[in-house]
Amino acid sequence: MDREEFRRFGHAFVDWVADYFENVGELPVRPAVSPGEIRAKLPKEAPRSGENMADIFNDFKEIILPGMTHWQHPGWFAYFPANNSPPSVLAEILTAGMGAQCMIWQTSPAAAELEEVVMEWLRRMLGLPEGMAGVIQDTASTATLCALLTAREKATGFAVNERGFRERLTVYASAETHSSADKAVKIAGYGIKQLRRVPTDKDFAMVPAQLERMIREDRERGLLPACVIATLGTTSSAAVDPLVPIGDICRRHGVWLHVDAAYGGSAGILEERRWIFNGVEAADSLVFNPHKWLLTNFDCSAYFVKDPGLLIRTFEIHPEYLKTGVDAEVKNYRDWGIQLGRRFRALKLWFVLRSYGVEGLKNVLREHLRLAQEFRGWVESDERFEVMAPVHFGLVCFRFNDGSAENELERINREIMTRVNDSGRAYLTHTSLGGRFCIRMSVGQRTTAEKHVREAWELVLQAAGSLAGKKAK
Amino acid sequence: MDREEFRRFGHAFVDWVADYFENVGELPVRPAVSPGEIRAKLPKEAPRSGENMADIFNDFKEIILPGMTHWQHPGWFAYFPANNSPPSVLAEILTAGMGAQCMIWQTSPAAAELEEVVMEWLRRMLGLPEGMAGVIQDTASTATLCALLTAREKATGFAVNERGFRERLTVYASAETHSSADKAVKIAGYGIKQLRRVPTDKDFAMVPAQLERMIREDRERGLLPACVIATLGTTSSAAVDPLVPIGDICRRHGVWLHVDAAYGGSAGILEERRWIFNGVEAADSLVFNPHKWLLTNFDCSAYFVKDPGLLIRTFEIHPEYLKTGVDAEVKNYRDWGIQLGRRFRALKLWFVLRSYGVEGLKNVLREHLRLAQEFRGWVESDERFEVMAPVHFGLVCFRFNDGSAENELERINREIMTRVNDSGRAYLTHTSLGGRFCIRMSVGQRTTAEKHVREAWELVLQAAGSLAGKKAK
Repeated sequence: MDREEFRRFGHAFVDWVADYFENVGELPVRPAVSPGEIRAKLPKEAPRSGENMADIFNDFKEIILPGMTHWQHPGWFAYFPANNSPPSVLAEILTAGMGAQCMIWQTSPAAAELEEVVMEWLRRMLGLPEGMAGVIQDTASTATLCALLTAREKATGFAVNERGFRERLTVYASAETHSSADKAVKIAGYGIKQLRRVPTDKDFAMVPAQLERMIREDRERGLLPACVIATLGTTSSAAVDPLVPIGDICRRHGVWLHVDAAYGGSAGILEERRWIFNGVEAADSLVFNPHKWLLTNFDCSAYFVKDPGLLIRTFEIHPEYLKTGVDAEVKNYRDWGIQLGRRFRALKLWFVLRSYGVEGLKNVLREHLRLAQEFRGWVESDERFEVMAPVHFGLVCFRFNDGSAENELERINREIMTRVNDSGRAYLTHTSLGGRFCIRMSVGQRTTAEKHVREAWELVLQAAGSLAGKKAK
Repeated sequence: MDREEFRRFGHAFVDWVADYFENVGELPVRPAVSPGEIRAKLPKEAPRSGENMADIFNDFKEIILPGMTHWQHPGWFAYFPANNSPPSVLAEILTAGMGAQCMIWQTSPAAAELEEVVMEWLRRMLGLPEGMAGVIQDTASTATLCALLTAREKATGFAVNERGFRERLTVYASAETHSSADKAVKIAGYGIKQLRRVPTDKDFAMVPAQLERMIREDRERGLLPACVIATLGTTSSAAVDPLVPIGDICRRHGVWLHVDAAYGGSAGILEERRWIFNGVEAADSLVFNPHKWLLTNFDCSAYFVKDPGLLIRTFEIHPEYLKTGVDAEVKNYRDWGIQLGRRFRALKLWFVLRSYGVEGLKNVLREHLRLAQEFRGWVESDERFEVMAPVHFGLVCFRFNDGSAENELERINREIMTRVNDSGRAYLTHTSLGGRFCIRMSVGQRTTAEKHVREAWELVLQAAGSLAGKKAK
């Protein structure tokens, strides 16, 4: 492909993205495709000779696009958001074009130093303690694994890295903690049985007294408590674990405190939500995802640590072929995580933070918070429905409840959700809270406006109405 | 940023990339910047209000670009290549624009199915055994960690995941194996002391008899051999471990065989290099990096496994909030690796494979192999230089050797490398082979042509000449 052809298709693709941003709201959020349907349209072998970009682009539009779920749809209320934004997409063009692999300072000095700078910008924006150092990870799953590994090494004096896992170390997380904690305790060799599920209160937040009891009991049994994971914005209901008492317990027992603020953390840029970080001084590590709610293309997960020395000592490697003359003077981020190779992720974050400015980002988040409260109000004012958890951020957990038995309620609410989703106008997902099936309405897509939230509610009402009608027959 | 502004800057950025591809060869491969120099040019805080994209782009060009190391420079002979290509960059625009998070089938059916299809295309292109199933990982470091985790679980009947690491499991890799093996045995809890460094022969390839001896000795000591890592294209010298005898040993001892073909694997698309895969039927897992030598933007690492059931059982999680109605019928790649969140990486691979076609890719690789042999010839025909390892792929390890003592030779060769790199016209890195300092000349950047290889050799000769002159004084 020559320069002119690249230019021509590049312009066409940019135009396509510009139109996509504008029109994605008219596509069904979730495609109506069956398993295997897309695969059946694709050849079983790579072509022998090169094909025209026009044909490839055409197949993209005709085969791939109709099978995509549209995360940037304003009717996206599923899971959590994974926002991109125009400046972020623009930065990705430059990142892809330069194709730099930023494993160490010398392989891209500007990338390493920009990462340091933008992570410090984020630290200040969130009001995290001075001295905390940041690194961009791909996902919060990886960051939480890094935390559990560093905690493991700290608790054992770096003996596991050296001679293998022998100790019985325990990890504590609320019963509402994300599944990445389960995955990470397995990967790091603790074993899932050593993950204590701390009970939660009526708001689904960790009960500190229960945490302390469990730590004491484990100590008495000769186990070694190594890490507590506190969550600011759990996946099911966006509950907030109280950092002040949890941090106090961790300090007294010498246990690593990892804060999973993957979703909720972005709200820390708002003064009125900063309370979630009360007590964060006690945290040894913290992760939050700009790729969720800070308009930066997936993947971009911000991981902060109090003592980078411990992180580096957990991961550092020094093969001859990676040594450079400046290693003592620079940050080589290869030693700050699992992967050696690293993309230039700091660029898109820099573009987003500058293009929106802190105030611009605050406005976006505040509107999402306002819309979530609106939705909560509609649910509360309709006696057939109930809100199932406090609404701290953009997530509203609710359900239809006409007093039927629990299994009947689950059936009805599942059916409501299915009907809304099948409309293609909104996409809701579900969870289980205290054993009850709930619908999750997660407001946070960049372009979601009041009309989209209202439309979703109307779809819920329609579905509930026709179901209730059926029941009456 | 409105649609027109996005469009305008998008076009400008595409044009910038088009020009960059054309002119990157005129920039210094490695920038002449000192640690801290870029950071000092950047503000300490994020801006309060949004800034113009024109200003951001300007700063990108004036502050960031001069601090970048240019991996797409035709004078890139450092480390291994990390190629992008026009079709790959084009695909990245669409991927960024759609911003889909492809953790499970339902969150992007087309992404999941295209991943399955292109991985099957790759399997056929490389002639890997039928039935091997593929998944895209970010890096070979992650893939090797996945292999060590699955091997750990298989060896212990999934007991480590369940109740924590208790067994003394051992891992075997040649003394030339990549540092990601060290990192992975630590992360997975084996401990670095349980990593056996199998001696290599004069060509730096693993000696199977030594491997077998070590496995036997460990068994006699009551240890449980869990995994052997064989490398096709080691990082230092691109040595090829012999899979046939290694696979035979693994089979007889019931040990997991992981093949790290991160660099060399791409050459498997060439009939004349297919011999590297002789014996691959014995492999339980294999990784190679299309982001190195198959013109697909970093990151894109292809991981193949014989038994996906074992991989999935190692990583699977089933929280309520991720359950969907089609889970039994589809591939949910979240369970095929460490991260939950996943980018739509299959798209760029699809664009590259279709745009070049298999023959087009073969031509690119064959030219690199030819250029490496040319360079090897020049080194061999100059009696002041010597080639230090067999040249199987694009990598030539060599050094100046005028018969001086080893430490003097190291000093001279370091100086030669420094002078070549300071020229800005070529970028070489080094390694140590059998305790001897060697310069690595790694030919594999997409646009590298004979003139660039010749220029690098002339720079080496110039540096050597002036150094030899100095010595004579």
